[in-house]
Amino acid sequence: MNPIIQQLTKHRSIRKFQDQPLPEGLLETLIRAGQCAATSNQVQAYSVIRITDPHKRDRLAELAGGQPYVSAAPEFLVFCADMKRATEAAERAGAEVVRGTSEQLVVASVDTALMAQNVAIAAESEGLGICYIGGIRNNPDGVSELLALPEYVYPVFGMCIGYPAQDPEVKPRLPLESILKQDRYDDSQDQAQVAGFDEAMHRYYQERTGGRKDSTWSKELAPLFTTKLRLHMKAFLEKRGFGLK
Amino acid sequence: MNPIIQQLTKHRSIRKFQDQPLPEGLLETLIRAGQCAATSNQVQAYSVIRITDPHKRDRLAELAGGQPYVSAAPEFLVFCADMKRATEAAERAGAEVVRGTSEQLVVASVDTALMAQNVAIAAESEGLGICYIGGIRNNPDGVSELLALPEYVYPVFGMCIGYPAQDPEVKPRLPLESILKQDRYDDSQDQAQVAGFDEAMHRYYQERTGGRKDSTWSKELAPLFTTKLRLHMKAFLEKRGFGLK
Repeated sequence: MNPIIQQLTKHRSIRKFQDQPLPEGLLETLIRAGQCAATSNQVQAYSVIRITDPHKRDRLAELAGGQPYVSAAPEFLVFCADMKRATEAAERAGAEVVRGTSEQLVVASVDTALMAQNVAIAAESEGLGICYIGGIRNNPDGVSELLALPEYVYPVFGMCIGYPAQDPEVKPRLPLESILKQDRYDDSQDQAQVAGFDEAMHRYYQERTGGRKDSTWSKELAPLFTTKLRLHMKAFLEKRGFGLK
Repeated sequence: MNPIIQQLTKHRSIRKFQDQPLPEGLLETLIRAGQCAATSNQVQAYSVIRITDPHKRDRLAELAGGQPYVSAAPEFLVFCADMKRATEAAERAGAEVVRGTSEQLVVASVDTALMAQNVAIAAESEGLGICYIGGIRNNPDGVSELLALPEYVYPVFGMCIGYPAQDPEVKPRLPLESILKQDRYDDSQDQAQVAGFDEAMHRYYQERTGGRKDSTWSKELAPLFTTKLRLHMKAFLEKRGFGLK
């Protein structure tokens, strides 16, 4: 395994950081590395808001559902899907632009994620730790107002960055056979594979908590599809000009 | 700049490949590296279909709008956003699951992109070249039928992988100042920055084509917002159980 793949396999989310800022210019290097990711037809449908204002940090930590590391991390970035810049550029070049499509939602969300993952990898290659913050979609209206996001821009996720002050274990993943299929979607082994993974996660939780946490992957997923549904996202995205058409 | 960041900044899409397969087991290593990317609440909302059947390759090349490298590449993967596995697992664990939300569309698309970007970086670290294929969204119904994709699974993009038989230049990116903002979305300099980038892209096209291609970033974007809109995506996504709620 080469050193780059080795680094990829060591990723874990970091939520406690040393009180040490990034060296001058490093954040810019990370964002530039992010920009080098593939982008659909070179549209580069993203903007990154670096949050330095401590009041805004505190407010974002609150809006994300009370995540103190959003305030405390040396750097906190909000990654936005951005179709404003590109559509306006095309318009100035004479195109009769159509906005607000589901395709644009997919393109901009994917572009933003590819870019952010490069930033994450670049950060980890410098000994930094990161944590994606999906919680900014708990109250995307509040986040959009706080950061003055215009139409055709929406906050996809945040990211904490800093030097780690913890060393959590790498979390297990589904077996390769669950994920990788050949020539067609065959899920005939799915239930057995998930059962095996549930056991692996049960062992992981037991070991990490000295036997206190009695859970599995399947059980942990439940809130995602019951209480943490974020049913506001449809109306929010449509209001911001994504997914109407 | 460390070697990992250096690699990230050298990315360019490869569309011509040597006639040399990947060594035994390497594809699996790449997918495992993909699985190590961050995932929203560990949901791992993706499946990857490896296409080995030459007839399916040819059909996918056609469905993607006539992209011969989809047939010719040593490996072609279809990255699917997959909410089926996780929602069924949660259901078996007793949850009263709600499906079909826009939030699930965002989570699954982002999870898939983070995973794929790790695969891309792992591949490039092994001397391979890759090309994302958004063209599979030209006819997502046809792709879904061909690969027997069930409900709550949708094809986000494809990826060609192989040893490069070409050495294209790295494509320029927007200036950092366009992308990176501080504490709020300020686009007051946007028009000037885009104008500068249009000039840079004009020079790039002129140099690469011996003066034949007279275009800019803004001009190249036009079809994305006029003819290549993929207006079928809204109905397609809703039919597959994404974005209804």
